[in-house]
Amino acid sequence: MSGRRRYAVVGAGALGGYYGGLLARAGFDVHFLLRSDFAHVREHGLRVDSIDGDFTVDDVHAHESPETVPPCDVVIVALKTTANAALSTLLPPLTPDGVVLVLQNGLDPEADSAAVVGAERVLGGCCFLCANKVGPGHIRHVDYGAIKFGEHSRRGVTPRISAIADDMRAAGIDAEPIEDLPLARWKKLIWNVPFNGLSVVLEASTDAILAEPATARLVEEIMAEVVAAAAGNGCPIGPDFVAELLDYSRKMTPYDSSMRVDDKLGRSLEIDVMYDRVVAAATAAGVPVPRIAMLAAQLAFREKSRSQDS
Amino acid sequence: MSGRRRYAVVGAGALGGYYGGLLARAGFDVHFLLRSDFAHVREHGLRVDSIDGDFTVDDVHAHESPETVPPCDVVIVALKTTANAALSTLLPPLTPDGVVLVLQNGLDPEADSAAVVGAERVLGGCCFLCANKVGPGHIRHVDYGAIKFGEHSRRGVTPRISAIADDMRAAGIDAEPIEDLPLARWKKLIWNVPFNGLSVVLEASTDAILAEPATARLVEEIMAEVVAAAAGNGCPIGPDFVAELLDYSRKMTPYDSSMRVDDKLGRSLEIDVMYDRVVAAATAAGVPVPRIAMLAAQLAFREKSRSQDS
Repeated sequence: MSGRRRYAVVGAGALGGYYGGLLARAGFDVHFLLRSDFAHVREHGLRVDSIDGDFTVDDVHAHESPETVPPCDVVIVALKTTANAALSTLLPPLTPDGVVLVLQNGLDPEADSAAVVGAERVLGGCCFLCANKVGPGHIRHVDYGAIKFGEHSRRGVTPRISAIADDMRAAGIDAEPIEDLPLARWKKLIWNVPFNGLSVVLEASTDAILAEPATARLVEEIMAEVVAAAAGNGCPIGPDFVAELLDYSRKMTPYDSSMRVDDKLGRSLEIDVMYDRVVAAATAAGVPVPRIAMLAAQLAFREKSRSQDS
Repeated sequence: MSGRRRYAVVGAGALGGYYGGLLARAGFDVHFLLRSDFAHVREHGLRVDSIDGDFTVDDVHAHESPETVPPCDVVIVALKTTANAALSTLLPPLTPDGVVLVLQNGLDPEADSAAVVGAERVLGGCCFLCANKVGPGHIRHVDYGAIKFGEHSRRGVTPRISAIADDMRAAGIDAEPIEDLPLARWKKLIWNVPFNGLSVVLEASTDAILAEPATARLVEEIMAEVVAAAAGNGCPIGPDFVAELLDYSRKMTPYDSSMRVDDKLGRSLEIDVMYDRVVAAATAAGVPVPRIAMLAAQLAFREKSRSQDS
């Protein structure tokens, strides 16, 4: 990769619209693959209402199909993982050194992109972003925004990771290259596994869950299961990290987890990457995770009964 | 106890109204301690619409306070356990050989009556009854009706147990004296613990829970935890019993568990006797029951958030 990198963003929901919008605003050549918002964005562009300052991108390269996208250096996968079965038909062409950067939730969501383009071409990142799509091509950025990203198939920060991080920072994104992507994913799961599932099953916000002693204790027990599963998979995480995370959770502004947002909107839930893959990895390592498996079963039930209601 | 025994029924909901009504119909001297239905029952009596034949009891000994009840040979406690804190002010006087028969759910609900009248005077029973109160003094008996009851503070069928069973059978009640009350309670908990809690948390009927493979497996896992807790507390239960219970659950008419009925009506949930006491007994025996404890926490959260909504 040399000169200015060309980017594609697959899926322009809150996350893809926000990061892709920032890159486009900074002058990068960014191509958006859109579905429901295609006509609107092609005509009206993107609008981002952000705590860091509102902006619009008027002249957006909007595509309805990956075939019209020119070969890209970086394809950002910003779809919900529930759409991953369609990845083989959605990924735009890559340049010879082009890579796919998977900005999705859960454990090893990169595996699905790796199955399409090969593991060597895949990077992955964890996003710490509070944003919603409030209308076609219209994103509201509420809080945070950091991306921590690294290589999928090896450890260490490679030149291509550093180069993309430089692009992102030039676009105003708080991008941090990381040496150990699996460790970062497990760390994020320590928060995601208890709060996403419980907020859906209990129909509650994070602060309400922590305000009730019985469920606050349950959160800690589920976190301990995630930590044990991570350790069993070569990613030891110390007790200080969990204590700080809990402390931080108690102080943060109450908000709906991504899965609760999906549930409220009647969307598919990311049970596979956030629960089933965690249970499978734990089981393979001989680590019992009864509470995580129970939450997975309750979520599967809820999703199925919900779809039968509608 | 000699001659015709005098009975009292504390709490004339579906269960107390049904069994007390049958005893009164058979000519036993039965005194009902009532609260909300007092005036109605005193004036209009009891009405039972039963699959075994409808009947009414016109001349009911209705009481608003235990002080007006004459000393009784058998006081049947038919309250929800959530009212047990008030037992010391609710129990009518006993004859010198009088006993309290606790027909309540959960693990060792007898302990609360024993704290008032002494353990030696307490009997307990498990009811297998499908009945609802559909109006003041008006019970609908839908299915089943057996009572298995025995001594609280020792094993074996005593003469007083046999005598009361004779009364009940004379009244048309399917009464079975049992040698081992704790074993009967644990056996009933194998069904109650998974289905009551999950039906509330998932807002689902038992057949829907069993129709989804993930939650059907969860039911079996929770049953296994109850079996392990029972074994740890001196009540071994073989795998055949659980297999037959599951088989029976799959074939039974779908209906709402007692806790789901309570939840739908906005009543307090019997979390203490059905979950907290099970977790405590398991923990004391060194048996891990993470799924039961998780269900207890979810129920506690739901009850609290529900009461804040109303």
